[in-house]
Formats: sequence, structure tokens, C-alpha cells
Amino acid sequence: MKALVYRGLGLKAVEDRPKPAIQAADDAIVKIVKTTICGTDLHILKGDVATCAPGRILGHEGVGIVDSVGPGVTVFKPGDRVLISCISSCGKCEYCRRGIYSHCETGGWILGNTIDGTQAEYVRTPHADTSLYRVPEGADEEALVMLSDILPTGFECGVLNGKVAPGSSVAIVGSGPIGLAALLTAQFYSPAEIIMIDLDDKRLDIARKFGATQTINSTGGNAAARVMALTGGRGVDTAMEAVGVPATFQLCEAIIAPGGIIANIGVHGHKVDLHLETLWSQNIAITTRLVDTVTTPMLLKTVQSKKIDPKRLITHRFTLDKILDAYDTFGRAADTGALKVIIST
Amino acid sequence: MKALVYRGLGLKAVEDRPKPAIQAADDAIVKIVKTTICGTDLHILKGDVATCAPGRILGHEGVGIVDSVGPGVTVFKPGDRVLISCISSCGKCEYCRRGIYSHCETGGWILGNTIDGTQAEYVRTPHADTSLYRVPEGADEEALVMLSDILPTGFECGVLNGKVAPGSSVAIVGSGPIGLAALLTAQFYSPAEIIMIDLDDKRLDIARKFGATQTINSTGGNAAARVMALTGGRGVDTAMEAVGVPATFQLCEAIIAPGGIIANIGVHGHKVDLHLETLWSQNIAITTRLVDTVTTPMLLKTVQSKKIDPKRLITHRFTLDKILDAYDTFGRAADTGALKVIIST
Amino acid sequence: MKALVYRGLGLKAVEDRPKPAIQAADDAIVKIVKTTICGTDLHILKGDVATCAPGRILGHEGVGIVDSVGPGVTVFKPGDRVLISCISSCGKCEYCRRGIYSHCETGGWILGNTIDGTQAEYVRTPHADTSLYRVPEGADEEALVMLSDILPTGFECGVLNGKVAPGSSVAIVGSGPIGLAALLTAQFYSPAEIIMIDLDDKRLDIARKFGATQTINSTGGNAAARVMALTGGRGVDTAMEAVGVPATFQLCEAIIAPGGIIANIGVHGHKVDLHLETLWSQNIAITTRLVDTVTTPMLLKTVQSKKIDPKRLITHRFTLDKILDAYDTFGRAADTGALKVIIST
Amino acid sequence: MKALVYRGLGLKAVEDRPKPAIQAADDAIVKIVKTTICGTDLHILKGDVATCAPGRILGHEGVGIVDSVGPGVTVFKPGDRVLISCISSCGKCEYCRRGIYSHCETGGWILGNTIDGTQAEYVRTPHADTSLYRVPEGADEEALVMLSDILPTGFECGVLNGKVAPGSSVAIVGSGPIGLAALLTAQFYSPAEIIMIDLDDKRLDIARKFGATQTINSTGGNAAARVMALTGGRGVDTAMEAVGVPATFQLCEAIIAPGGIIANIGVHGHKVDLHLETLWSQNIAITTRLVDTVTTPMLLKTVQSKKIDPKRLITHRFTLDKILDAYDTFGRAADTGALKVIIST
Repeated sequence: MKALVYRGLGLKAVEDRPKPAIQAADDAIVKIVKTTICGTDLHILKGDVATCAPGRILGHEGVGIVDSVGPGVTVFKPGDRVLISCISSCGKCEYCRRGIYSHCETGGWILGNTIDGTQAEYVRTPHADTSLYRVPEGADEEALVMLSDILPTGFECGVLNGKVAPGSSVAIVGSGPIGLAALLTAQFYSPAEIIMIDLDDKRLDIARKFGATQTINSTGGNAAARVMALTGGRGVDTAMEAVGVPATFQLCEAIIAPGGIIANIGVHGHKVDLHLETLWSQNIAITTRLVDTVTTPMLLKTVQSKKIDPKRLITHRFTLDKILDAYDTFGRAADTGALKVIIST
Repeated sequence: MKALVYRGLGLKAVEDRPKPAIQAADDAIVKIVKTTICGTDLHILKGDVATCAPGRILGHEGVGIVDSVGPGVTVFKPGDRVLISCISSCGKCEYCRRGIYSHCETGGWILGNTIDGTQAEYVRTPHADTSLYRVPEGADEEALVMLSDILPTGFECGVLNGKVAPGSSVAIVGSGPIGLAALLTAQFYSPAEIIMIDLDDKRLDIARKFGATQTINSTGGNAAARVMALTGGRGVDTAMEAVGVPATFQLCEAIIAPGGIIANIGVHGHKVDLHLETLWSQNIAITTRLVDTVTTPMLLKTVQSKKIDPKRLITHRFTLDKILDAYDTFGRAADTGALKVIIST
Repeated sequence: MKALVYRGLGLKAVEDRPKPAIQAADDAIVKIVKTTICGTDLHILKGDVATCAPGRILGHEGVGIVDSVGPGVTVFKPGDRVLISCISSCGKCEYCRRGIYSHCETGGWILGNTIDGTQAEYVRTPHADTSLYRVPEGADEEALVMLSDILPTGFECGVLNGKVAPGSSVAIVGSGPIGLAALLTAQFYSPAEIIMIDLDDKRLDIARKFGATQTINSTGGNAAARVMALTGGRGVDTAMEAVGVPATFQLCEAIIAPGGIIANIGVHGHKVDLHLETLWSQNIAITTRLVDTVTTPMLLKTVQSKKIDPKRLITHRFTLDKILDAYDTFGRAADTGALKVIIST
Repeated sequence: MKALVYRGLGLKAVEDRPKPAIQAADDAIVKIVKTTICGTDLHILKGDVATCAPGRILGHEGVGIVDSVGPGVTVFKPGDRVLISCISSCGKCEYCRRGIYSHCETGGWILGNTIDGTQAEYVRTPHADTSLYRVPEGADEEALVMLSDILPTGFECGVLNGKVAPGSSVAIVGSGPIGLAALLTAQFYSPAEIIMIDLDDKRLDIARKFGATQTINSTGGNAAARVMALTGGRGVDTAMEAVGVPATFQLCEAIIAPGGIIANIGVHGHKVDLHLETLWSQNIAITTRLVDTVTTPMLLKTVQSKKIDPKRLITHRFTLDKILDAYDTFGRAADTGALKVIIST
């Protein structure tokens, strides 16, 4: 089968690889119908993800058709159309029992990282019964690809951890795909204000179309002052960090209201300064989270009932044999305007 | 009347001052029966608290008898015995309505800071109806002095924010009065393990008597490794910082389990390094809080029903005319073994 | 001044009454600008409310202008435009501190019940600082009248108690003004399904316009079966009772899913059968609540940010001198189609 | 193997039965070491449990040793010592994902009900990985038998649903084994008062030894008045029903404070009168629950850390060949003083 393979720092190739086989009783083999590329895949190519070795098939998102299942799989059977979660969950360990699937003792983020992933014709999915989700009758499968990772990430790490509430004020720092996913799902809770902050006016234009009530271009460095002005000097109830660098996290520290929550979504490579000399008395919380995908069933219901249209995140479409073009388009997002790209097999 | 007055960096004196008078409709004048000294008073003397000007009567804790009330006071009348909260709460502003009394728009920590305090024969207490608490019939008033600040601080900032739960694992970094108050109140929730960490073996001895299941002397710097060993490599569910310096906060970062909470209690004067490069994916929360004293009614019930004995925190007793001796004893705690000192008028 | 006075069973009259005066330090006198009539006012006229004696000026809703204040009032001053809450809250008693304003020891539902109410040119409002809310700049005052009672009632008793959540399924039994208020505010949380149940097709038509995803006319008695069919035999996550008779409560018992919540909103005059012989093992909750109006600040923000348009509940408008006509129109709602009527002074 | 078999209304016998065999991939066969008898077993014998057919081996509690496992079992292997939960949970269905194991689509309470149970030398346990719990090193296995059903039932249905909190007031109606389990586990949260109510003074004596702060013999019918007197006319924050008849549930309705919770634990055979004509405005909640055993890991930690000693519930011990004597002793609890009986194989 064809697959996109990580070949070491900066290198990738489409290769022929053998079709995967069942290895454990709770495995399934899934024929990929649609997949996509994540910012994390670009991080792997930059050499930022030490756990991912050269030779690995990338990809941790997708929708497909069950091809075969191990003897322990009881929920799915060959022919079932399924959504693949970016997080594999055994459903049995203490972390899975507590809903922290991301720290599953034999799962977590392994697809396209420590085992072969979804940017291929077939993928082996461990813990299939608790890591796949049935595609509802009549669902739009492109929309569902957004539920593999980006929507639950924005929703769980940003919106739920940030306790967005009716009438509350929200700032989202970073208007890339993840920030926009947080913007879309924040609206489930009817906040009064969602202030979107980015360096790129084009992304802020999109944010306004997606429901931002205010946008701030943070070029020039006065974003904090502008947020304070917009909130009557009080700051926001929820500040989401959706970039992953120290400056944007510290912007969140500067704009959080007493009693507020800084919900970190970004993947960070460096430590940041935490200004406890002022924040110790501000009654705030800071949360971090690798997405658990524990809300996938809830998100499926919101998509099916049209409370959200995840297809708005999709800007480009490719076939698997053109996946190198898809990487190029996604990697040059500032030029191409790419948010999420769909790759069909 | 006699009062302990802050006279500028490192200076304090017992002075004669006029008895305070009602200034606002919701004021009360309270005759002090018992008060105490807080670590924050020492911070003021070191010049760390910019809001507190020379000439200020110190003290924000105490039990007393209502002497007179303004026309807006309806809950209390002269002669009532009352507990004075360290936090003044108007009960009307948005923060007070949300239970964040510490950020009351016309209150918060003002006693012994921006207005004269309790280390005197009389004190004016603003927002009396919502900042004083009736002393229950038959209560031990020395025990109740611990409810002005130290017990709610340990309980709200450490135990409640840290979500201590039956069977959970807790580490408290700092076995001073605040850490011990957190230790005492953590036991309301029956955690399986409470690991107390300090540099001073004498304080760790006390911690064991107060209910710590394990103690670690962090001299030498292997405290994190020892906590990980005690928790099977997993870390603790709740880590409380009860010192207020970067090293102890970073120890909390090093020992927190996935899904855990770092509850900051300490007053910090400097920024700390937040290691988001590892913590971003650890599904943790960090909380900060200036005590709200919103749990004072709950704590009064636990004291009255003997679920906790706050008098265990009291090590020394003085009369008001010997308050300079009390400061000396409290300020040299490493030598004197002082935890909390009671000053009677 | 002119006022609508309850004169005993079935009797009411517009009378001339003296303008009220300040009686307590925390009182305000408010000049009414707009008021409305509540279903509870009709209950009083039917003799169902024993606490309300003949001679009482009715009404517990409205918007007005502060005319004068007692010496303990610090938040408001004459000339301020204010929203009057149906619940008076002292802000000081244990219930108010816990957010249960409805059980305030010196307040609760007293306006137009145990003290004179708002269907008059002026009203005395006790505990003014904690029972009035500032009208935001530029707000539509007719819309705000809906925040005195009906919107917080639907929201607190139905939506919050019922824990409506993104993707969840909701049934509301009763499509009168209260049920419709619950319907409007339930949408703050983006449930997948809101099934509205009533005996009157005209009210169900309105419900569909207000956002119901399904409507069921319960005439004939197969409503429970139809709800079960619509939910795949599972029942709903939240069932709100918005009528106040045994049959509608028991319908809720019949349609609640395991793990679900029956949120009672209706005012009941009789006991109901609770079928614990089946429900004991269904892991459900039943909640009751007299509205606390603790969410008024939140609701004000949702109105100001246009997340909800409460004016959709207003069907008729009158002046105070025509208030008897207003009662007639509101009392014959089945004929007139009245939901809420606005009375301007 | 020897087994206790239900033989129809009022009939039971010790019989020789074939050792059970693996039927599904996730089954385990467990050799029973210790089991016990539950009040529910007596209900089956009275014919109250329609789902349990004659011929069934009874029992849903116990500790044992894994004898063999199906190919899908990954957590346990032969020789492992395990605690058997009364609730079988697949870990995969929507209810299990939400922590409502009692409503597992292929599990729930099936042992000793719809499939053969634990009062035998061996038992087949479906969904073994998510329905068995590893016995900790050095644990007292008799104590752990109390964690199969009775302790999680008292804790989840009574204490957690009832939101027992530090300083709160609790009444438990029924001082049998389940009420006593609720009493023991309520103390995890340090309530100020636990009032135990029963008709039997001997059981109330035990309750006092187990930590009740007050006891009321409800013979004579003035129990409600006495609870109100003990709580200053206010009622209790949490009322637990641990009997299962209308009178005791209605006692809970009579003593619940505004803002309180009635947590039903009892198994009911009849409907009860719910007095909504008074309760509609009392801001209460009523909860029901078939135990989920979702807290078993937490309870194991509290037992291992000696926060609770479940062996206090054990009054008698028998061997499996004397199990008919055990039933006799347990069935005549009023005479024998039996709480829980241990049966060893």
C-alpha cells in the first residue's frame, strides 16, 4: 500500500509498504477513506518529536472502513465506517477510567508517532473498541475528520478547561486551525465576547467570519492593553493560548481577570516566565492538557444536530498520491491560506 | 488606646492612638479580645508590602466584642462576640457575589494594610455584616483566632483549590504555620497520603504529629526523587506550595502527576520558571488564590463539631503590652518553635 | 399614586395609594417605568397564595428609576435606572451567601406578596443594593423586564438545574411563557434536541419558532411513547416540568433517561406519585427550585451581547391605567395568544 | 463444584454444579476465596427480583484467584488475586464511558441475577478487565469483600450523591448494613452531624460506635420533629434513605433543609408520595442510583491507607458448606445481630 513515511529531519516520502496486520486481540485494521495533516506532523518533520523515529508512517486523523478485527473486538466488525481518534485508549487503565485517555498506559498519542499512522491506505488501530467511533448514518465524512483531533483539542483543552460560560469574556491567542477550532466550539456556551488575537490580518478576517466578536492584530505589542481596554480594565474570564511560544503565554498572563482561567492549548518547546509575583493573589487557574478525545461522542452529536459545521475548517482537498502537494500547501499556510487539508484515498 | 504601629522599614512601636470611630453606615467598632501575628506582618516590616504606609496599625486577625455599629449594620449589635475576617467583603460587588471576596471592590485585604488593623484595643471593621462572624455559644476564642486567616488560607488556597479527595495523594511543600494549616484541613477529605516537605526537621516532627503520613527533609535537593519513589513514579494528585519562592514552586512542578493540581498558597516576590515544555501535555492545573474567607461558616462548623482543633497551631501567648516580645518570638520561629502566638488585650 | 390592588378571592382594583417611603436603611424607592404580570399574580387572585393578604399591591417584576435611597444604600443613587428582581436578597444571611437568595431570611419572594409590589407608580424595594441591577447603557428596558423573573426562572430552575449540555437531549413539558423562557435559555448550551410538549398547537408553533427541534401535542396521552421513539428508546437527558400538575411531572418520570435530570419549574398545588419502584435504579436526579435570580448578572450580559432576545416573549403592551385590560388579555392567553404583557407607567 | 442455587420462591439449596468455562474473549474464571450474602439475595428468595430465574447460582460479591482468562483479557492472568465487583462493566458502551457502569449495555448487575454468581467455588466474570480489581499486596481479603457492593453502594448512592461536606449535617434513615456503610464512608468528608434513624435500638448502638453523632429511634413517629429540633428547625443538608419503603422516603422529605439533597439508597417496591406542593420551592434535589462501583479504586486506596476499616461490618463467618446456616443467620438479623457474614471456600 501507499503511505507517507517520515525519513528523518526534514525528509518525507511516499512509499510502498505492506498492509498492516492484526497484532493484538483488540486491534482493528482500518481502510482509510479520508485523512488530513496536523501541525504536529510538521513538528515531527522539524525533528521536534523525539519519540517518532525515521521510517514511521505519519498521520493520526481520519475516517475509514473497518477491514478486519482481532478476537477481542466486540463493538466493530468489518465494513463498519469509523472515525479514528488521534488518542488510543485502552479503556482499562486508571487514566482511561478517569477520562484521561491521553495518558493511557498502553495508548495515548501513538498513531503516527510510536506506531504507524493514518496517512496510508490502511492503518492498524490498537484498542479499537475504545478508540474508534461509529460514523453516524448520513454523516459528512470530511466534517468528521475534524473530530479526530482538532475539534476535541480546541474544545477540551481550550473551551472545557477554560470553563467558557454564557455571558463570559474569552480571548483566544492564535487564530490558526487550533485557535479557530476553539473559537467554533466556544460558541457552544454563548460567551458574550470572544476576542481573537493574531499577527496575521487574513486569519483575523476568518476569525470574524467564524464568530469572533473582536479581533486584535498583536503586531506592535499592545495587544494586552487593547484587551484591557475592551474589558473595562478587568481582563477576560478565559484566555486560551493556541500558539505554543512564551510570548503568547505571557500575553495570557497579562490579560486574565481575577477569578479567570488560562487554558493552554499550544505545544510548547520552551519554559515560560510565570509571574507569580503578581498572579499569586489573582485567584486564577492555569490548565494544560493533551487532548483526551473524551468528548468525541458529545461532539459527534453537535455535528449531527448542526450546532457546528466543522467543514468550515477545510480549505484544500487532495488525493493520497498527491499528499506531498498537500504537505506543501499546508506547510505554507501563510501563503496558501490553508487551514485543514483533506486527503482522500 | 494602645496599638502596634508600623513605622517604616524594620520599625514598629507600641503607641497610644485614639479609639477609632464609625465612618460609614456599614462599619462596626470592635473591642479586640484576642489577636495574633501573621507572616504577612513580618513582610510589611521588611518593606515588601507597598500598599502599607508607615503609621499603620498592623494586624488582620482577631476575636472581639462589638462596641458600636453604623446605621446600615443589621446583623450585629453592641455586645456581640465576633470573629474578624482578614478579608473585608461588601457582599454587593460582582466579585463578592461570585464568592471572590478577596477582590471585593471596596474591601479585600485592607485591615492592617490600607486601613488600621487589629493589633490594638479597638478596630474599625468596614462592611461589618459581611466581614464579621458570630462567635458560637461556648466556643474557644483562641481557637477561633485561627479562623481569621490561617485556617481559611490553608483550606481554600491549598485544600479546596487542590481538590484533595478520599484516597488521593498530597504533598505540601513548606511545614510552617500555613503548610500546617493546610495539613490539618486536608484531613477533612481523607486523602491516603500527605507528604510534608521542609528543610527543618523540627517542623517535620510537628507535621507527623499533625497527621502527615510521610515527611521529607528537602535539604540536599533530592526531594522530588523521593516523592516520585514514594508514589511509584507517578507523582502526587495535589501539590501545595506553602513557602513562596521559585525553588519550592518548581519542586511542585517536578512532582505533580498527570491530572494533578498545583495549588499555590505562598506569597511570591519573584517570577518562577514554568516548564511548559514538559507540562503542556500533562493535563495539570495550577491555581493561585488570595484567601476569600468564603468558607468561614463551614470552618466554624468543623471547629464546633470538633473535626479539627485549631489550637494545636498556638505555641505562645502574650498580652498586648508585651506585643513586641510576641513579634520577637514569632519572628525567630526557627529558634523559638513558634507557630502562632496569641495576644490578649 | 395609582396601583393595582388585590382585593380578595377573584377581586382586584386600580386604586389611589400613598407613595411608599423608606422604612429601613437599605431600602430604595423606585419609580416604575415598565412592569408586567406573572402567572403567579393570577394564582394570588385565585386564592392559591395564602401569604398574600387582600389590600396588597401586586407585581414583582419591572424596570424603573431610583427615586430615593436609605442611608445604608451604597450602590445606587436617585436617578439610576434599575432592573427590579422578583427575589429580594439581603446578601448577608447564610442562604444569600450560598447563592440561595430565594430563601433569604429577610427577603425571598416578598414583593407583591408580603409587601407591596411593582404594579404601581412607585415601589419600595428592601435590600436595594443586592436586589436591584443597574440597567446597562443603551439597553432595551422592555427586554430587561423579562429578567425580573421569567428568564432567570426558566434558566435557573430548568436549564442550570437540568444541566443542559452541548449535544444533549432535552424535553420541556409546557410551552407557556415559562417553558418558552426555558427553551430560549436552554439554547445557551447548544443541546442537540429540544422536544417541546403541550396541549396547544398554537403554543407549539411558537416553540418551533423559538428553537424547538421537535414538538409533541400531548392530547391523547401518547407523549411519553413519542419521546421514547424520538430518542431511540433511551429517553431524554433533561426533562423540564413547566406546568405544575401531577400529570406533567409524571410524564417527566416516564421519559427520563438513565443518568438524566428532571428539573421541576412548575408551581405545584398537589403531591405527585414518584415511581421509585422503577426509578430507584435509574441513576436520575430530580430538582426543585424557587428562582434565586443569582444569574441576573450573567443574563444581563447575554442580553447585551445579543445571545438572546427576551422581547420575543412580549406579545401585548398597555399603560398602567389600562392594567385591568392587561390582566384580562393575559388571563385569557389561550384566546389572546398572550405570552408576556408590558405595562408602561 | 459446590454452589448455592436459587430454586424458586423461598427455596434454595447447595448443589453440585459443573465448573464454569470461558464463553467470551473478555471472560475470566475466578476461584472464590471469600464471598458474602447481600440483602438483595434475600429479595430474590422472596420472589421480588423477576430477572432472576430458578436454577441460578446466587451471589455478586467476593474475592478470589483468577483461574483462567479469555483471549481478550490483558490486565489479569491466572493466579492473580482479585476483588469481584457486583457490577459488570464492558468499559466500551456510552454508559460505561460516562461512569454509569450500572447501566452497561452488556453488563450491570448480572452476577447472581441473570448469570451465575459468586456463592460457589468458581464464577465466570464477564468483562473481566473492567469488572475485577487487583487485590493490593498485603490487603485483608475479608475487608475487601465489603468493597464488592456494600461500601460503594453506601458511598456512591448516599455520600457522593448526597454531597456530604465538611461541617454539613447528615441524616441516614436506616441503620442496617447499607446505612452503616453510608455512615462509615460519610466520615471521609468530615460532616459536623450524622443523625442515624432506625426502629431498632441495637442497630442505633452500633451506629454510635461507628460514628453517628446522634441517634433517633423512629418508633412512635416523631423522628421528623426530633431532627428538626436537632437542626434548629432548619433540617439536614443531606438525607439518605437506606430502607426502601415509602415511610422512610417521606421522612427524608420532611427533614430536608432548603438547598439540601435526598439521596436514595434503598431498593423500592412501591411508588411514594412526593410532596411537590411544599418541595417545589425548597431548592432541593432527589437522587437515585444503582451503584456503579466507579469508586472502587478510590475505596481501595482508603482501605489500604486505613482511612476506613470495612471489617467492622463483619459479624459472622462460615465456610461454603455451611452457607445455609449463613443465610439463616443473615436472614434473622434482628435476632442474630448480623450485619455482614463472610463465607470462605
